[in-house]
Amino acid sequence: MTDTATQPIGIFDSGVGGLTVMRAVIDRLPGENLIYLGDTARVPYGNRGAETVRRYATNAAAFLSSRDIKALVVACNTASAFALETLRQRLSIPVFGVISPVARLAATHSDTGEIAVLGTRGTIRSDAYQQALLNLRPDLNVHPIACPLLVPLAEEGWLDGAVTDQVLARYLQPLASTEVDTVILGCTHYPILRDAIAGATDALPLPKTTLLDSAHATSEAVAEALGEAGILNQASATPGERRFFLTDLPDGFIDTAEQFFGCSLRGDCEHIDITDTTSAAASSTTE
Amino acid sequence: MTDTATQPIGIFDSGVGGLTVMRAVIDRLPGENLIYLGDTARVPYGNRGAETVRRYATNAAAFLSSRDIKALVVACNTASAFALETLRQRLSIPVFGVISPVARLAATHSDTGEIAVLGTRGTIRSDAYQQALLNLRPDLNVHPIACPLLVPLAEEGWLDGAVTDQVLARYLQPLASTEVDTVILGCTHYPILRDAIAGATDALPLPKTTLLDSAHATSEAVAEALGEAGILNQASATPGERRFFLTDLPDGFIDTAEQFFGCSLRGDCEHIDITDTTSAAASSTTE
Repeated sequence: MTDTATQPIGIFDSGVGGLTVMRAVIDRLPGENLIYLGDTARVPYGNRGAETVRRYATNAAAFLSSRDIKALVVACNTASAFALETLRQRLSIPVFGVISPVARLAATHSDTGEIAVLGTRGTIRSDAYQQALLNLRPDLNVHPIACPLLVPLAEEGWLDGAVTDQVLARYLQPLASTEVDTVILGCTHYPILRDAIAGATDALPLPKTTLLDSAHATSEAVAEALGEAGILNQASATPGERRFFLTDLPDGFIDTAEQFFGCSLRGDCEHIDITDTTSAAASSTTE
Repeated sequence: MTDTATQPIGIFDSGVGGLTVMRAVIDRLPGENLIYLGDTARVPYGNRGAETVRRYATNAAAFLSSRDIKALVVACNTASAFALETLRQRLSIPVFGVISPVARLAATHSDTGEIAVLGTRGTIRSDAYQQALLNLRPDLNVHPIACPLLVPLAEEGWLDGAVTDQVLARYLQPLASTEVDTVILGCTHYPILRDAIAGATDALPLPKTTLLDSAHATSEAVAEALGEAGILNQASATPGERRFFLTDLPDGFIDTAEQFFGCSLRGDCEHIDITDTTSAAASSTTE
């Protein structure tokens, strides 16, 4: 184990959805020191242009790099689709996106060769999952479905009930005439809607379907790559240090964030401005 | 009529919802030259903190001021709630928000003295409509309802149907036990859901209710104030010049924008960066 091992892993997302990825990394690698950055002043990235997303992601990566991270996890599908190559060119540390790991898992898993990808309009339009899957297995038949209402439903906390069921039924209807056996939850918000999505796929005349989410697949990819590089923080018997930075922190926001993280964040979130990345620093601690 | 009369009116919103306000201004004052700015790189403002909203609104106002406007319409409820006083202190031209005009109309209109306000979570949390109404008529009983799913439903184009009806029924359910006779559509997106909202209020055991939207009330307030100041562009017999600036312009975006504006925008939208307001200028013309 090198000194690098004790450096933190940086995790960034446009908002709080990436906390589902951070949760998976904690569960898989409890000893790691972690720094989370949510660009909540500019969320959501999903409907923005590619150039804008690259600019925002570069700001975020610069902030995290200034805190001496050993690896960067881009826990945002839109930024993974549009900005990953840019970030890899700029940084000299491993950079992980959320698309490739779950695409690899899905390509291996599917028996029928038919895979559905659910995502925001921006993620689906980027074609990133479709390309990643077809690069791995050119024989696949991929069914991309843009589901722009799922993020607001998750943030509203309407995780089940008639409205959520009907929205899902409408979005998933095109799958009724397919042989899809694998569904990728291509948005970090979707794992908290997993039960409702499973209910909606079960209601369709499909083969037995498996839902795969990027959070778990990504945490496995991080563990494997850092292990191979010999920079896992395995010596520590105690849980790693975890810090949370948000670029905006409106009233009531912590409640939403905790729903994604699965436990308390109170007292742990710092509000920062990353627009000027050369001087990015914590300006205040709130809540 | 002074020279000021021919200067444009600036209209700004976080996104494209403010186009419903621009449409109402065009219908009421067809001869005016208008410049629209949609801060689509940072939309939505609804869930952001007050300080962040003031900073963004100040950027937007600086861009429009640099184009020699004679008046500014803040066609965004969140910015009207949080940033109006800041902008009035900084600018020496008339500044109109979208809250006061419709609040005045509602306070005059209601017979029962019970008024519902529908808005984003940010607008409702700001208490701006509630305060404006009670300042005008302290005897009013105001029922504020946060409806965060209505903007994504409008942007998805799901303007009617089972999902929209059920979302509205759930949001409006608390009104069933009231005597509300006036409903303020406190978000610039909501006018395009007017029919569905009317259906939902009709389904409740309420007195005959009237829906009031800020777009028309604001255009009346602008016409009245500029008329009193003698700076309306009444000499022109031809329609005024209209320009549209957006801080982000992703693929397919114009289609959504046109739904709010009610007619074609193709070829008219310019993409600009207002982060650095000192050098804000059109960088490219797209679509």
